[in-house]
Order: sequence, then C-alpha cells, then structure tokens
Amino acid sequence: MEDKLATTSEGQPIRCKAAICRKPGSPLSIEEIIVAPPMPREARIRVICTSLCHSDVTFWKMEVPPAICPRILGHEAVGVVESVGEDVTEVTKGDVVVPIFLPDCGECIDCKSSKSNLCSKFPFEVSPWMPRHATSRFTDLKGDIIHHFLFVSSFSEYTVVDIAHLTKIDPAIPPNRACLLSCGVSTGVGAAWRTAGVEPGSTVVIFGLGSIGLAVAEGARLCGATRIIGVDVNPEKYETGKKFGLTDFVHAGESENKSVSQVIIEMTGGGADYCFECVGMATLVQEAYASCRKGWGKAIVLGVEKPGSMLSLSCNEVLHSGKSLVGCLFGGLKPKSDVPILLKRYMDKELNLDEFVTHEVEFKDINKAFDLLIEGQCLRCVIWMDR
Amino acid sequence: MEDKLATTSEGQPIRCKAAICRKPGSPLSIEEIIVAPPMPREARIRVICTSLCHSDVTFWKMEVPPAICPRILGHEAVGVVESVGEDVTEVTKGDVVVPIFLPDCGECIDCKSSKSNLCSKFPFEVSPWMPRHATSRFTDLKGDIIHHFLFVSSFSEYTVVDIAHLTKIDPAIPPNRACLLSCGVSTGVGAAWRTAGVEPGSTVVIFGLGSIGLAVAEGARLCGATRIIGVDVNPEKYETGKKFGLTDFVHAGESENKSVSQVIIEMTGGGADYCFECVGMATLVQEAYASCRKGWGKAIVLGVEKPGSMLSLSCNEVLHSGKSLVGCLFGGLKPKSDVPILLKRYMDKELNLDEFVTHEVEFKDINKAFDLLIEGQCLRCVIWMDR
Repeated sequence: MEDKLATTSEGQPIRCKAAICRKPGSPLSIEEIIVAPPMPREARIRVICTSLCHSDVTFWKMEVPPAICPRILGHEAVGVVESVGEDVTEVTKGDVVVPIFLPDCGECIDCKSSKSNLCSKFPFEVSPWMPRHATSRFTDLKGDIIHHFLFVSSFSEYTVVDIAHLTKIDPAIPPNRACLLSCGVSTGVGAAWRTAGVEPGSTVVIFGLGSIGLAVAEGARLCGATRIIGVDVNPEKYETGKKFGLTDFVHAGESENKSVSQVIIEMTGGGADYCFECVGMATLVQEAYASCRKGWGKAIVLGVEKPGSMLSLSCNEVLHSGKSLVGCLFGGLKPKSDVPILLKRYMDKELNLDEFVTHEVEFKDINKAFDLLIEGQCLRCVIWMDR
Repeated sequence: MEDKLATTSEGQPIRCKAAICRKPGSPLSIEEIIVAPPMPREARIRVICTSLCHSDVTFWKMEVPPAICPRILGHEAVGVVESVGEDVTEVTKGDVVVPIFLPDCGECIDCKSSKSNLCSKFPFEVSPWMPRHATSRFTDLKGDIIHHFLFVSSFSEYTVVDIAHLTKIDPAIPPNRACLLSCGVSTGVGAAWRTAGVEPGSTVVIFGLGSIGLAVAEGARLCGATRIIGVDVNPEKYETGKKFGLTDFVHAGESENKSVSQVIIEMTGGGADYCFECVGMATLVQEAYASCRKGWGKAIVLGVEKPGSMLSLSCNEVLHSGKSLVGCLFGGLKPKSDVPILLKRYMDKELNLDEFVTHEVEFKDINKAFDLLIEGQCLRCVIWMDR
C-alpha cells in the first residue's frame, strides 16, 4: 500500500477533503481543508475507510460542550501512515493502522499493567485538541481552526493521530472490517471477553441490541456462552441477534405484571451469570444487576447515561448477593495488544465481523450514513474515502 | 476429647444450662433447658467455648422481627460432637467442629462451584428454626419452645446444628482461637483473601476498625499488601490496628475541607487498589468506591446496613472508572474448605488470631461479655462453657 503523496507531502501541509460539522444536527459540509504535518509523537494518516458509530451522531446533534463547531467527527477507521513526527519509532510510512479513541501510551502504570486499560498519562476526555500538544492540526482554507474529535477525526482524507492512539495492524485484513475494531465492536466483544471473562457454558443477558449489544453477543458466543438472551423494545432485533449467537429474546415492556429481571430470573432458574447494560439508562443497570445470579453474577455497564444520572442499589442486596458491578471503556481492551488478537480471530474465521457491515457508501455520500444509522436499519455503514 | 455424657446421652434429651434471651436488651437468663436429640442430618454438640460477635448484640437488642424471644443467641463457637442423627457420615461422636452460620450443603450448584459461597439448597436467612426440619431442638423446663439463632445457638452447654453448618477441624487447635473462625474474623480475612483477592504490594483501605475491619487488615497483611490504611472516627484504633498490619490511619471527620476519599486519593496518588466498607453505612460505601483507584480499584461491602438503605453511584463514573463493587457474606469463604486452611495458617504462625482475644470469661459471666463488647474495649471475648 504505497501512499500516492508519499514522496512529496512529508513535512508539508496537505490539502484534502474533509466532512466538517459546522452546525449541530445539520448535514456535514464536505470542504477542502489543510492538514498540518505531524508534531513529535504524532503520525499523519491517509484514511482508507471509516465507519459511523452512534457516538458520532450523539456529538453531531449535541449543542452544548463538550460538543464544539467546526469539528471533524469520525472515530472508527483504518488508514495508512503518510508521515510521522519526531520521536516516532512505533510506526513508519506505509504502515496500516487503526486509530482508537482510548489512549495506550505504553509507559504509565496503567498501560504497563494487565489489569487496566485506562491510560493515566492521557486520562480519557472528550477534547477538541490533539492529546499531547493541545492544539489542532486542521484549518480551513480561510485559516480558521477546525477541531478534532476523540483524537481520531476520521471523516477526512487525511488526519493526524497521536502515537498513543494508533494500533498497527496486519495489512492483509480488509479495511472495511478492521475499522470496526476502533470502537463499537471492540467495546462489546471486549466487555464479554476481557471485562466479564465469560466462561464456556455461561448464561448471558444483553440489555439493548444495538451494535454494541450485538457485539457483546458475538463476544459471549466466542467465549463459549451457551445461552445468550437479548432484551430489547424492538422484537425485530431478535432475528439480527441470531447472527451473533443470540439464543433467546425478551421483549422489554411487553410483560404487564413482571419486570424484565423477574422474567430473566424465571427463564434462567435464578438469574444469569453475566448481564450487560448497553443502552445507558440507570434503571436498566438496576434491572441488569437484579437479573444476575446470586453467588457470582456480574453486571457490566457499557451504556453512556446522561451526566449526573445516579444508579441506586440496595446496600444489603449488594452485601448478601455476592454479585458484582463493573464498568468498562472500550470493553476493557488494551488497544495495542488486544485489537490485533481480535483481528487475528477474524482472519481465522472465529470472530464474525462481516455481519456488522450492513451498508457501504462513498465519502461524498457520508450524510446518507447518518440517515441510515438514525433510521435504525443499519448496524455499521462503512464510508470509503477513495471511491 | 471424650464426651462426659457420651455413653448415656445418645438418642436421649439432654438437660443442661443455656443463656436465654427472654426480653430484648435485658441480661441473658441462665436456665436449665432440654436439648432434643439430633434429627436426620443433624449433630448434637457439646460447646467448649463461644465468642461474642456484634451480631449477637444487634439481635439481643432488636425488638422487631427477625428478632424473636425466647431465643438462644451465640454463633461463634467450637464444640465436640456428642451424637449424630440419621444419615450423618461427615462427622462422628468425638469430632471437634466449628459451627458456622453460613450453610455449605456440598450438594447444590453453588456449594460445588468455586465461584460461590451462597448455598442455594439452604438460602441464608435469619430464621428461628433448624434449617432442614424447620423446628426447634430447645425447650425450657415448662416445655415451651426456645428459638434458635443463625443455626448455631452456642450460648448453651449443648446445641444441635445441621450438618450443612458444621466444619470439622483439627482437635489440636486451641478452641479459644478456632471459635473466632465461625464468623467475624473469617469474614474480614476472607474478604481480603477470597473476595478481593488482594495481591502482594497492594494498597488497601479499611473503613471501620472493629473486629471485622481489623480482620480485613490481617487478611490483607497475610496476602502481602504493603500499605494498609485504616479509617475510623476513633484514633485509638490505630494502635490496635498496627498489631494486624495497619500502616496508616485516617481520622474520619477530622478534615474540615476534604472528604475521606479525597484524603485517600492524595495519600495514595490516585486511590487504593482495594477499599473495604466494614461499618454498614451507604454513604461510607460510596466513599469506599470513590477511594478506589481508576482502572482496577475494587470496593468490597462487608457492613450490614439498615434494611431499605440505598447506595447511590454515578452511572457514568461506574462506566468510565473501570472500578468494581462487590459484596460478600462470610468474606466469600466456603466454610468447609476454607476455614481449615485458615486454621492451618494459624497453626503455622502465619495468621494472627491471638490478638483478637482481648477477654475471656466463664459461662456464668456471659452478660459481662456483652458489657465489654458494648463498652468498645473488647475485640473478642471468649466464653468458656465448662470453667
């Protein structure tokens, strides 16, 4: 994969196309921008393809901080390194990389520990800047700054990403599959694999069958769970879920006299081994906790709630049940070591990524991807930059 | 250890002394009672010694259900099997046993699993009866029923205990040490060892330095924790705590501008690996959770709150912090397999039990034991039945 600008662009600004969010909720504007060369410990990437995640939609609609305009959204992608800044030894021109919103600096106590995936050198936040130098690499043709998003900003032909946010991958992996590992699918699969540690024969319940919930199902299937129960308000999700290992379905809100947790407890003879909340509702986290089996049940929080939302649990139930509650970002995966493992399992035909890609569009049609995701018929729409 | 009644009492009722709680909060009444022979899967035990736990005091004072009078309290003890009912093969006459309030039937999925210590055949509850036959083995001399307590009722020269609640131990172990493993000390040591899985080099915080909190310190020390921080409203607890491995102390309520969790986060450079709540206050559980280190911190709930007390946690903090919250009964220990391991570690001079025994009294002075524990100068008072 040779870069078409490779011989001329290094150290120079690159003029290319990007889809800019200039006004919350309005169609992205495809414009020419200037992408500055990478600073120390950064790499400039030619984006091959990017996929649309619900977080992009959330921040696209958002009218208050940490949302900010103008900004280049996009955080699931695959690209080729065009050039690197000073002090970069980890990747070199031509390497195929997956940018990931969660940093993995490799130097701090967290990145060195197998127990954490929360880098303490660059604590995760939704910032409009590059993580290490707190500036932007994007300007429009008038010279005005355009902000970054989640340290990736992949809705651009070229972007700049800090080395802490880059995972080098095998170039043989199809890019429209590898990009899924940047965020959503990794979060779900990782939550089952790393955070929960689902064991063969386990019973799993998943609250919310969006892409992340389905990825939890896929992760649970991969770990050998024998019963994977999906819970959703939309019964059509059951058919989709079967492709990712779902064995049972509970139609939330349809049982007049019973809570979902009561239904789950009856179905499972006492509760499930692992219950995943993938919606982002405090009351559903409580239902997930209540659906866990006494003795060893574990509730795993993946959904993002509104800031300030509180979760309420009975103190004595926590004490007497022996259950545990845990949250995770990026499914508890360590980006640089775990993503290549998952990609290998895809290449070995163990991990199902293909079924997540329901749509593909050209970059000029990126706003269609937003429509598709919002309409709810789409799991992942891959946007190809050079088609 | 030969039983003095062994040749004559088997299959017959035994007349002996017991300390009966006839009125909440009033001194126990030492009276003669009749102890019926054991029914199937039960054993009758001659109590050698018993120790007083705060739960005995709590239920002695309590005026509402599940408290009930008349009742024989006491649940930390060591005894010798006097006789066994039908279908008992696990213990035989003359065996030295520790009765334990938490059942371990050995047959159900929980008892067979290494992941749970919550027997599902006999779900734990505070019942006034024997667990398997739901009747009492105690009557007074008028023939009126006297109720059981926590399936042990050790404030009696003889008691009847279900086989699920009996752990056979090495008769060489001093009984005034072994009895401590029936409840409080096991709960604390187990929480550090089994529930938290404290690792060498860990930093641990303990909220509340009663016997259970000190036992957590001892467990953490045994697991190789290098920093063990105690939190209490009473600074005198620090000196006691040092005997069990405490390395630091935080005087709760003394810092005007900072919460305890802020103090802990500063002391530890970001939070502790493991935080144990041993008081039973929802707000302290929240402080314990807040005191945990991001990435892998674990908050462990040991304290019993008032029924209905709710714990409030920020949904997004749970998600973003990667911390976990877990509760445990009996420290997560499996009574029949783990208690003998801890007793061996005592005999090998690794586990410090001696320092927990601050007082010893004769059975006739059992009410003094209550006074001592309530006055707060006592960790464990051992009550000898035959002195």
